[in-house]
Amino acid sequence: MPTTSRPSKGTNKLDLRLAAGIAKKSGVPVRLWDDTFVFASANAQHRATIRIPNRATLWNLVARPSSGFGEGYRDGSIKVDGDLAEVLAAGFTHAWDRKPRNRGAPVMQRLADAIQVISRTRARRNAEAHYGLGSEFYRPWLDSRMVYTCAYFPDRDASLEDAQLAKLNLVCRKLGLREGDSVVELGSGWGALAIHMAAQYGTRVRAFNICEEQVEVARASARRAGVAGRVEFVAEDYREASGRFDAVVSVGMLEHVGRKEYGRFGALVARLLRPDGRALVHTIGRHRRMPTNPWIRRRIFPGGYAASLGELRNVFEPNELAILDIENLRRHYALTLNHWRNRFATARDQIVQQHGAELARTWELYLAASEASFATGWSQLYQIVCAPASSNAIPWTRPTPIDLPALDPLSHTRGE
Amino acid sequence: MPTTSRPSKGTNKLDLRLAAGIAKKSGVPVRLWDDTFVFASANAQHRATIRIPNRATLWNLVARPSSGFGEGYRDGSIKVDGDLAEVLAAGFTHAWDRKPRNRGAPVMQRLADAIQVISRTRARRNAEAHYGLGSEFYRPWLDSRMVYTCAYFPDRDASLEDAQLAKLNLVCRKLGLREGDSVVELGSGWGALAIHMAAQYGTRVRAFNICEEQVEVARASARRAGVAGRVEFVAEDYREASGRFDAVVSVGMLEHVGRKEYGRFGALVARLLRPDGRALVHTIGRHRRMPTNPWIRRRIFPGGYAASLGELRNVFEPNELAILDIENLRRHYALTLNHWRNRFATARDQIVQQHGAELARTWELYLAASEASFATGWSQLYQIVCAPASSNAIPWTRPTPIDLPALDPLSHTRGE
Repeated sequence: MPTTSRPSKGTNKLDLRLAAGIAKKSGVPVRLWDDTFVFASANAQHRATIRIPNRATLWNLVARPSSGFGEGYRDGSIKVDGDLAEVLAAGFTHAWDRKPRNRGAPVMQRLADAIQVISRTRARRNAEAHYGLGSEFYRPWLDSRMVYTCAYFPDRDASLEDAQLAKLNLVCRKLGLREGDSVVELGSGWGALAIHMAAQYGTRVRAFNICEEQVEVARASARRAGVAGRVEFVAEDYREASGRFDAVVSVGMLEHVGRKEYGRFGALVARLLRPDGRALVHTIGRHRRMPTNPWIRRRIFPGGYAASLGELRNVFEPNELAILDIENLRRHYALTLNHWRNRFATARDQIVQQHGAELARTWELYLAASEASFATGWSQLYQIVCAPASSNAIPWTRPTPIDLPALDPLSHTRGE
Repeated sequence: MPTTSRPSKGTNKLDLRLAAGIAKKSGVPVRLWDDTFVFASANAQHRATIRIPNRATLWNLVARPSSGFGEGYRDGSIKVDGDLAEVLAAGFTHAWDRKPRNRGAPVMQRLADAIQVISRTRARRNAEAHYGLGSEFYRPWLDSRMVYTCAYFPDRDASLEDAQLAKLNLVCRKLGLREGDSVVELGSGWGALAIHMAAQYGTRVRAFNICEEQVEVARASARRAGVAGRVEFVAEDYREASGRFDAVVSVGMLEHVGRKEYGRFGALVARLLRPDGRALVHTIGRHRRMPTNPWIRRRIFPGGYAASLGELRNVFEPNELAILDIENLRRHYALTLNHWRNRFATARDQIVQQHGAELARTWELYLAASEASFATGWSQLYQIVCAPASSNAIPWTRPTPIDLPALDPLSHTRGE
């Protein structure tokens, strides 16, 4: 039973009961406007507290827990004492005990997920809403290559810099890239993977990204790396890609594609592949079907959706693509996000100055919630390798650390 | 256009047209009862021929290609000059060009797949039909441990013996077995994996198998290996398993479980796992939904079904199991089957003497068809590692050849 300590004048019985419900659901104590503390259980150990400044915020939190918390944190009315990701992780962990089946996910949203078609115009608007903040916003807290997807930590103490490099190599080795291969990338961010594939693996790359500003940054990086002649960044929707390639790669874009489009996305991958080609799709996912958090959808990723492997069947199965390999890197993403969050905190003053406190709080919450979600098993990160089902030009065994390609991709200094 | 050579008295125009259809569909020349050859195309190179002895067989082959060929080969009326697996692979490869979507799969069979419930009685009867032939039938052509599932060839020249040992270690390492772990095995064959886990990894194993005779052989092997005290073989249906274990493993049994049972199978796996446990399911599958070959179903695996990953979602997603790792070993299974087939051919006279020519031909066709199916991408072999979605007791990275457990599992001689 939730217990309360030191009830005082500003709060009434209903307030306390509502706060107790929040404490119980979140697994974290609540501190009300009159400094009343409400605990989830009498003898629980807590390193963090949620502070609720007034009755309106409390009621909002009860009525719409996720949006209420998100909006409250964003506007600064809700505060957290202690580590934000720990608070959220406590809530997520607690949710496992309740074993929610999400049967009760809002009907309208499930319907929206099912029928949503992401047009080129919508895709551009969605992308601009997130990535359009500009590279200068992301630069202080990403690694030097500006890789804005899950890193791969060969061991947990690896630096973010080394882990992002290891991820680039992991992707290249899973694709079995060879010198002279042609690659098409669907969704290329600031260009790190495309440039790495050209510079370190001797491939020719055509990379699509709908965000103009990212493409400009990527082109400049390619020139600096001396591979501008072998990497072409195309500022267009991924659906404009055509031709045939030895490899197709898409890292962190499927989340934006929309569930309704999976079949067409897979058909495009199949069409872009030579008969002996390989494809790699790297995407945030779920262990089962689950609605997108409404606050994340509203403030962070409009149109975003993370699918279960069962839902992802529509990418592969109707398009005669055979899945060769899936690796779930969710704990690597939790650690990646932890690095980003720490770097974000270090750069916070600068970010607040340039983008305002509201945006800083929004991003803090998004990064912390994402870390907590990956750390507690509510989100997954799937790296999926596939090939045309009729192809035997597929790796005999998985790449291993002692099974490096000829070009020595682990040497960081090799240019061209 | 199919062309014919040397038409002669015993065949008429319709015979030739029907034979041409078979040659075209199979991609292999047909030799009719009067030594007329019918080719798929004028300038094709062929190393094999299908021999059809009379009009009845020809018509049967046209009416029901798969069963017609299976039954004809089984009763000895249809013969193949050249390598049987090559003939079948030619047919399978040819089928890719036709890109059949199997929309036309027999309605009754699709219905049967969907509603079939495999009761304990039915499961025992199905198992007896295949495995009940007795260990002496299998011993001449399996490896010394009698592993009757896909091997893992670290390189293609590895012996079958070494490849089956490597597979056992691969499974143990993917499960991250540690000394003292408890393991439950669902479907244990002649006991090789259970014994290996106990002898080489220091675990305690409870292994279920519905086939009494296999269990007796397995118990004797465990005694010889000196691990009878740590491996308990239970001659019962897998559904009788209870308790909580550090690891759940099922290699080559899900094919017999029935599609309708996947959810319950997954629920059992989830129930058998400790909160920090891991499970591995190794199963034949498909790259998309496909009906079982009716001849294989009739003569080889009554009740057998190979599912796509999309269909397998029902094992994991409703049961809060997160997929951590999937490896597709289909080419390893083609090579495994090639080894079995060669060893079967060597032991053929003895097998014919003990079991008759019909059974020998039946098994030859089944092994060759399976090899051809895995070699051409019509069948897949999925090794799937999962854990409770809320668990963080999961491997940080995949096991690699240089990442061996403390007990040196590659030493073959270590007893206890």
